[in-house]
Amino acid sequence: MTTTPLPECGVARFLALLGGPWATLIVRELLHGPHRFTELRDALPGISPHTLTSRLRQFEATGIVTRTAYAEIPPRVEYRLTPLGEGLRDVLEAMASWGLSVPGPAPTAP
Amino acid sequence: MTTTPLPECGVARFLALLGGPWATLIVRELLHGPHRFTELRDALPGISPHTLTSRLRQFEATGIVTRTAYAEIPPRVEYRLTPLGEGLRDVLEAMASWGLSVPGPAPTAP
Repeated sequence: MTTTPLPECGVARFLALLGGPWATLIVRELLHGPHRFTELRDALPGISPHTLTSRLRQFEATGIVTRTAYAEIPPRVEYRLTPLGEGLRDVLEAMASWGLSVPGPAPTAP
Repeated sequence: MTTTPLPECGVARFLALLGGPWATLIVRELLHGPHRFTELRDALPGISPHTLTSRLRQFEATGIVTRTAYAEIPPRVEYRLTPLGEGLRDVLEAMASWGLSVPGPAPTAP
C-alpha cells in the first residue's frame, strides 16, 4: 500500500482502490460469501497467485476484506468482505445491469 | 477494437469495455455534456493524447460515444455520450457514493 492520499472525487477514489483488471472480480466472488484463497483462485481463471495475494493484502489494508485464520488442522484461512466491502454490491450491480444492456455479439454466437 | 466476444457476466462486460485507468474518468467528464478533444485532455491532467484518442475510438466503436465534426472554420469536433453511454451515470454515481464512504485521510489533512 502506498500512503498517497485518496482523491477527493468519489469516482477517482473508487478507481484508486478498485483499479486494475482483477480487483472488481475478486469482490464479485466475495459478494457470494467468504472464500478461501484456493477457492478464489479457482473462481478466477487466469489470475496469478501473486496478483491474488497482492490484491487481498491491499483490500485488508484498506478495510474492504478481513482475513481470518482458524486454528484447525490443516489450517484454514478465510477472506470475507467487511461492511465497507459489502457496500460495493451496489456498484457491481450497477455495472452488471449496464454491462448486460450493451448490445453485442453474444458469446455463444458463431 | 478486438473482435473478442464480450463476457457473459455483466460485471466482466463492464470491465472489458471500461477497463484501464482512464476510461471511467473520460466518461465522468462526458456525463457533464459534450466535450471537444482539448477540453477532455485539459480536464484529465496526466492523460496522453494517444491514450485519449485510443479510448475515444474504442468508445465510438462500442457505441458509447459519438463523434461529430462541424463544418466550421476552424473545424470543431465534439464527443458526446450516446444513450448507452448515458446509462453509465448509474454506475459512476454508485462508484462515487461508495468512494466517498471510504474512511481515509482527507486529501487536505496535514
